[in-house]
Amino acid sequence: MTRQELIQQINKKQSFLCVGLDSDLEKIPNHLLEFENPILEFNKRIIDATKEYCVAYKPNIAFYESMGLKGWETLKATLEYIPKDIFTIADAKRGDIGNTANMYAKAFFETYNFDSVTIAPYMGEDSVTPFLSHPGKWGIVLGLTSNAGAFDFQFSELVTGELLYEKVLRTTASWGTNENLMFVVGATKAESLTKIRKIIPNHFLLVPGVGAQGGSLSEVCKYGLNQDCGLLINSSRGILYADSGENFANASARIAQRIQQEMAEILSKK
Amino acid sequence: MTRQELIQQINKKQSFLCVGLDSDLEKIPNHLLEFENPILEFNKRIIDATKEYCVAYKPNIAFYESMGLKGWETLKATLEYIPKDIFTIADAKRGDIGNTANMYAKAFFETYNFDSVTIAPYMGEDSVTPFLSHPGKWGIVLGLTSNAGAFDFQFSELVTGELLYEKVLRTTASWGTNENLMFVVGATKAESLTKIRKIIPNHFLLVPGVGAQGGSLSEVCKYGLNQDCGLLINSSRGILYADSGENFANASARIAQRIQQEMAEILSKK
Repeated sequence: MTRQELIQQINKKQSFLCVGLDSDLEKIPNHLLEFENPILEFNKRIIDATKEYCVAYKPNIAFYESMGLKGWETLKATLEYIPKDIFTIADAKRGDIGNTANMYAKAFFETYNFDSVTIAPYMGEDSVTPFLSHPGKWGIVLGLTSNAGAFDFQFSELVTGELLYEKVLRTTASWGTNENLMFVVGATKAESLTKIRKIIPNHFLLVPGVGAQGGSLSEVCKYGLNQDCGLLINSSRGILYADSGENFANASARIAQRIQQEMAEILSKK
Repeated sequence: MTRQELIQQINKKQSFLCVGLDSDLEKIPNHLLEFENPILEFNKRIIDATKEYCVAYKPNIAFYESMGLKGWETLKATLEYIPKDIFTIADAKRGDIGNTANMYAKAFFETYNFDSVTIAPYMGEDSVTPFLSHPGKWGIVLGLTSNAGAFDFQFSELVTGELLYEKVLRTTASWGTNENLMFVVGATKAESLTKIRKIIPNHFLLVPGVGAQGGSLSEVCKYGLNQDCGLLINSSRGILYADSGENFANASARIAQRIQQEMAEILSKK
């Protein structure tokens, strides 16, 4: 999906919500365990319930990988079930030397036909650029993450006056364009967004951590929105596990709709 | 496999060679393409030819992941074929927040029964520690990598006087012990090993980049060996693709044996 197509979807749906498919056999409603493939059944119902309100789905690859072959089958069937006008993100956080990065790009862009893959930046340019040469596909590089461990290295002060994550954003941005590169920016540090927007004013940011991880939607939008919206805000557990009863999907729909309405209001005030 | 068992294997075989299974359909000998599963056939012959001379195998997960379900089946069958007294490394470079890291640990330690997994450090402590709580299993954290991109971020100078990769080694070492934690240290920067051994004198180092990536075995040993050996030196392409004819496995065996003999000599002089 191109940048222009993504922006069109955002405008049409008045939403920049991404639903994270961190689907976990231990957390889905009990009654689904009767099905032959409970996770696929769960995902389909979540997609049916939320597709009106979101512009992206983000399967967390670890949850599928941990289930072996069945997990990969479930991932493929889930992707095929997602409507074609919704952006898809393989939240895989891959990162390896050039020839290996090519293999990961092939896995997610060709074997599974995702629109984008999240990438870890530690290994530098040749680990990132193989994801940037596929038309209509995106690399989404970790800039600032929303977990406690973000403080261990990402905030390291460099002799140049930058913090490490600022250098990562600035340097990585020079390897691609805002048409093939996005960044992960953790929402629990909304104030950092002002500085981030000075470094990368035009790129889309994928913002995890609104909801279960404690970020605030209005704070993130205050500092992070740009003229093209420029944000994809993810919610996983808050939407997926809104209710554990037979009507869980209705609860998920209500939460997704509430977020979409808040987003529509924010977009209208821009 | 415990540290003690690994050291025993090294002493018994007089080798600290790791064979990287970066098995690529476009590079394996043509005559194998007739088999129902050419990659598995290739891996089995490489294992048969090299198992006397090495103490570890390291499948590069990208190469299997890019082949979809068949790739994961091949990975599982390959692992089952590796003799139980040889250390196994999932070269996966995973790294994500705590609950997701737990899922990756489950994938590689339980679903596939690897002894160890390589991990990217950018997301900090909660992305690493889930790999350190499985008895007999190991996390192998990227310290200094051997690719060109290593210079983009890993050598960043911090205000404390450290380079980023030195901080990564020092900080990460405090999260585990030398019985559950190793580090990836690129061999093409052998001089850095003196500094690295001051920071982590006792940990095992996984050293890629000897051979195709240009590192020298004797240089690496000069600076990297410790009292327990403390090195696993990887060769992938140099061994796998030593010959493309019907007798390719003999050529692979000869290369592996030559490296093992060089290692035996180095160990005897210690």
